[in-house]
Amino acid sequence: MALSEFELIRRYFTRQTPINTATQLGIGDDCALLQIPADKQLAITTDTMVENVHFFADVNPCFLGHKLLAVNLSDLAAMGAKPIAVSLALTLLSADEVWLAGFTQGFLALAERYEVELIGGDTTQGPLTLTVQAMGLLPQGKALLRSGAKPGDLVFVSGPIGDAGLGLKIMQGYACLQPEQALARFHTPMPRVELGLALLDVANACIDISDGLAADLNHILQQSEVGALITFEAIPLSSPVLAYIEATGDSLLPLVAGDDYELCFTVAPDKVHSVPDGCFQIGVIEAEPGLRLAKSGFIQSFTRQGYEHFSANRR
Amino acid sequence: MALSEFELIRRYFTRQTPINTATQLGIGDDCALLQIPADKQLAITTDTMVENVHFFADVNPCFLGHKLLAVNLSDLAAMGAKPIAVSLALTLLSADEVWLAGFTQGFLALAERYEVELIGGDTTQGPLTLTVQAMGLLPQGKALLRSGAKPGDLVFVSGPIGDAGLGLKIMQGYACLQPEQALARFHTPMPRVELGLALLDVANACIDISDGLAADLNHILQQSEVGALITFEAIPLSSPVLAYIEATGDSLLPLVAGDDYELCFTVAPDKVHSVPDGCFQIGVIEAEPGLRLAKSGFIQSFTRQGYEHFSANRR
Repeated sequence: MALSEFELIRRYFTRQTPINTATQLGIGDDCALLQIPADKQLAITTDTMVENVHFFADVNPCFLGHKLLAVNLSDLAAMGAKPIAVSLALTLLSADEVWLAGFTQGFLALAERYEVELIGGDTTQGPLTLTVQAMGLLPQGKALLRSGAKPGDLVFVSGPIGDAGLGLKIMQGYACLQPEQALARFHTPMPRVELGLALLDVANACIDISDGLAADLNHILQQSEVGALITFEAIPLSSPVLAYIEATGDSLLPLVAGDDYELCFTVAPDKVHSVPDGCFQIGVIEAEPGLRLAKSGFIQSFTRQGYEHFSANRR
Repeated sequence: MALSEFELIRRYFTRQTPINTATQLGIGDDCALLQIPADKQLAITTDTMVENVHFFADVNPCFLGHKLLAVNLSDLAAMGAKPIAVSLALTLLSADEVWLAGFTQGFLALAERYEVELIGGDTTQGPLTLTVQAMGLLPQGKALLRSGAKPGDLVFVSGPIGDAGLGLKIMQGYACLQPEQALARFHTPMPRVELGLALLDVANACIDISDGLAADLNHILQQSEVGALITFEAIPLSSPVLAYIEATGDSLLPLVAGDDYELCFTVAPDKVHSVPDGCFQIGVIEAEPGLRLAKSGFIQSFTRQGYEHFSANRR
């Protein structure tokens, strides 16, 4: 039986009780209403995922719901914002109830984990396209910007890099002895929300690694008008990624593969003692523009960029 | 030449100077930052438009940019909110610069008209799908909800109904002697932002007419748990719509055709003198549920609904 737009929203997306105090009006009117405390700024981010571009058509819808929200919460984490609300624009070819049940399970479980309210959105018919706008709260003037890195800052990442990229290669046919961890990081990344909050008075600049470590760190370098020297051997790599590099010689993977959703951030030397456990120092910010890579004792410029839509040399 | 995602955003969507004081950080970081005054609530709405569902593939991109923003500002108007910021998620098959120039011209001209900042979004590759999230400010507790109508309230609309529906019929081949007005209202509707603000202390309930007068008024009736009696002859109709009804006998058009983006609102009798000029009283709210229509002296129940996505009897 065909499901009307209103019935679909009621059945899958409407909660009875508010999940946090910011939401004063949720789904069901012309707009939702949020209350922003006077000492807070509102941080807002938007990410779209398109079938056959950002995900495979046969992806588990529960993974897809999780990842769609995770990539947006990751942008809030990169600013140090506490997530409060999201809207969801869902364009679907048909209202497949099995798919919808899986999708909302993945989406809403992660929303509940971070007490994020689904406040509204739109449901339309068309090729599968999913857009989330996520909103979060920040103490006034405390946002972790891309533009705050200073020469002498140390560069950190929040965890192993390249697992999601390896997961994508496994999806594309690469045979891996222990595929579970890489596939899990590709399908169901966890946004580093708590870490972003912990970095508010610690980091000078921060970004989440969605397009690849080199490309995302380059955003910090360009917007801060600085450069960086990264030591390849200092980049934390999981054993499956190490085995992949050994087997294939493809040592670029941790630099150019995206989707890890770890944070990359810079910290002044006198605040290094405040960096939370589990983060890894991988380099240093320098005054000279550009990204340089020390590997096996040699220093080379690193120009290859990560994934860019519409780029002439798009991967 | 292919345009990179970053170059596309820089060239078409980045302004140099902020358009209002709410935006503290715009396009270019992981999130945008908004400052919400302590005495205000934030109203948020999302609308998606999909090629071949909400617009024809050969539509003038300038009209499309205008309409995409207009339908979102219309939702803010229906709450009585003053628009401040929008984000834009643009999924495009290719970065066609002629199309992009037209689209952004229509979009940004309307944004400037209402001092709305484009604060961010996402640009992805895929079937043409456009999602806007619009944000506006409301005085605390003053929002015009769908749920506030009371028996005895008078029902108003803010202008002629059915022109956009006639415009769609003209697009589909209906021969009309004076097509200009109907086509303009179909392609470039103007959101009733000023009227929404003027209704803040006047209306008990309000909605914008996007799905059709009957369907949208029904949302007010259901959420307010009331009914209404509407007088067909009191619905303001333009001379092209009157001529269409006379020629075709299709008197349902002003009740079921959407896309007019006029406001429909209810007002207590003692506040009728405060209703701005140019609005038309078309009926009265009654305690008995349901929508009733008086036409040619007879009263009948009106059950036919406007457009619903995924509905079994979708038009």
